[in-house]
Amino acid sequence: MIEDKNQQRTQLSDLGEFGLIDHLTKNFKIKQSSTVKGIGDDAAVLDFKKNKIVVSTDLLVEGVHFDLSYMPLKHLGYKSVIVNLSDVYAMNATATQVTVSIAVSNRFPLEALEELYAGIETAAKIYNVDVVGGDTTSSTSGLLISVTAIGEVNNDTEVYRNGAKPNDLLVVTGDLGGAYMGLQVLEREKEVFKVNPNNQPDLEPYTYIVERQLKPEARQDIIKLLKDLDVKPTSMIDVSDGLSSEILHLCTQSGTGCDLYENKIPLDPQVISTCEEFNIDSTTIALNGGEDYELLFTISQKDFPKIKANPNFSVIGYMREESAGIHLVTRAETKIPLKAQGWKNFS
Amino acid sequence: MIEDKNQQRTQLSDLGEFGLIDHLTKNFKIKQSSTVKGIGDDAAVLDFKKNKIVVSTDLLVEGVHFDLSYMPLKHLGYKSVIVNLSDVYAMNATATQVTVSIAVSNRFPLEALEELYAGIETAAKIYNVDVVGGDTTSSTSGLLISVTAIGEVNNDTEVYRNGAKPNDLLVVTGDLGGAYMGLQVLEREKEVFKVNPNNQPDLEPYTYIVERQLKPEARQDIIKLLKDLDVKPTSMIDVSDGLSSEILHLCTQSGTGCDLYENKIPLDPQVISTCEEFNIDSTTIALNGGEDYELLFTISQKDFPKIKANPNFSVIGYMREESAGIHLVTRAETKIPLKAQGWKNFS
Repeated sequence: MIEDKNQQRTQLSDLGEFGLIDHLTKNFKIKQSSTVKGIGDDAAVLDFKKNKIVVSTDLLVEGVHFDLSYMPLKHLGYKSVIVNLSDVYAMNATATQVTVSIAVSNRFPLEALEELYAGIETAAKIYNVDVVGGDTTSSTSGLLISVTAIGEVNNDTEVYRNGAKPNDLLVVTGDLGGAYMGLQVLEREKEVFKVNPNNQPDLEPYTYIVERQLKPEARQDIIKLLKDLDVKPTSMIDVSDGLSSEILHLCTQSGTGCDLYENKIPLDPQVISTCEEFNIDSTTIALNGGEDYELLFTISQKDFPKIKANPNFSVIGYMREESAGIHLVTRAETKIPLKAQGWKNFS
Repeated sequence: MIEDKNQQRTQLSDLGEFGLIDHLTKNFKIKQSSTVKGIGDDAAVLDFKKNKIVVSTDLLVEGVHFDLSYMPLKHLGYKSVIVNLSDVYAMNATATQVTVSIAVSNRFPLEALEELYAGIETAAKIYNVDVVGGDTTSSTSGLLISVTAIGEVNNDTEVYRNGAKPNDLLVVTGDLGGAYMGLQVLEREKEVFKVNPNNQPDLEPYTYIVERQLKPEARQDIIKLLKDLDVKPTSMIDVSDGLSSEILHLCTQSGTGCDLYENKIPLDPQVISTCEEFNIDSTTIALNGGEDYELLFTISQKDFPKIKANPNFSVIGYMREESAGIHLVTRAETKIPLKAQGWKNFS
């Protein structure tokens, strides 16, 4: 967490806008056959033949979505791509391209942007997407990253939020609440650091949840797995704002109710132990934490045998008639209405 | 320029993120047949059949790209769409969709964002594009708008920056320097306003250039006209950073030189008179002013008869061998090397 005061600093003004873009993007390779023209013209040119495309966009703002006192720039670059790819996968699509725009104040030297772009490049490489455009500009304060992700689907395989039917099973991938608890640990260490800058934080017991916060992954693997298992979800969304919020989206858009079983919500042991340490209820965290970037989807009951043995999936409830409402069935078997706290960033 | 202190103010936190998006986008209509799914899922779904698509993105930052003391929010919303559509047209493509993301500090009430979105909606309506997505988030300071524009081209009609050949004619649409001189007038009035807030500025003599700055248009009409005239430019770019900068892009990417004739550069009489008033050389303004959003392109000489009688076009020079260099031929018939000052926003 200690800033290295001796690091090399090249002023952005030394390069100018075009020099900066060239410098930051010169290593980016085009790998997707759908990319006809990437960076370097007024627009990228893409050719998806007969396939449909999906487009999603997100803004990440310093001081709102990330804190550079514990978020390394390389991780931030990586995460900014991941959160957008997650939206593409949530459509059951293959991610193919991203554009990345940044607004940056002059307190950032070139070397900082190189770190950021190294993370972007790593994500693009691992997830096999091309960086095909963007904009680089100055800001009056702080750093802002805007990413637009593009993907493709063929043969009407896209999955919307509105296709869930009563009796469909509600399934989530991975586990929940880790990213939020990782953030709590990082925030606590930041406060300790303010009081005692020589204190070396021991993050060893929190490795998994800190990584969930700082270097999340998008579930590209699940899209492939669902295809291999021949399962097309009836509805799907990614878990970015917390499980409650996403369930409410699926139910509202599909016109269904839902019973969610508290004892089925997948939690990593580290999330449970850290929740105990912080004296927070782990179910509350899983329901409202956000930033897990897992996939939440519904499937027809006939598809249950295809997924039941797979450790990637947890069946956490089932969809009901709209009139039945949307409930959490607690461990004590009481039913309480599900409310979204989600991520309210204007409060 | 006087802020109305009595206007209605609804706090953004009263709506929450999803409520805000719903509220701002509820009037947006889908008109393009290529839009399968617009706002409301993890991603938009678009179907361009066999057509290729083009994608372009731009960030507009308060205090860098616009000043709300003289830029009405409705105009800003309009302009944020226009500058992106201009990039799509510069590919000889038809613009079809945009995504619009904003980061906004809590000093903006809902009514301000409604104004901004009214401008976005107006641009979308006039230019026949669908708003299919975006993100709305808070910022720690000021307003930032990120727009991604998508367009389509069929039958390999896209035009890149790199196709110019020696002896091709260099053509520009409309006239140049107006947006920059409009900005100078607005900046001057802002200074006057600071000294004497009761002074009513008389902008009547500057109507055209102020409109070029505050409410620019993108040359959608030119793309249609070129098609009707059966002219496919050999290279094309939009004039956003100033004529010099754009000529250098075309020459560098095409591997050509260029002779640009000073006496052929199209200037509106209001630009000339305002330049005289400000004691600035109008050629310098046309070369380096930027934000004109005209189209600059090259055509084969055989196509000259098709465009020569058309008042939309000015032939301002011709392309040469790379070894001949890139020059401005002045009214005094001296040749001076063309340099880009362009728009250096990191200095």
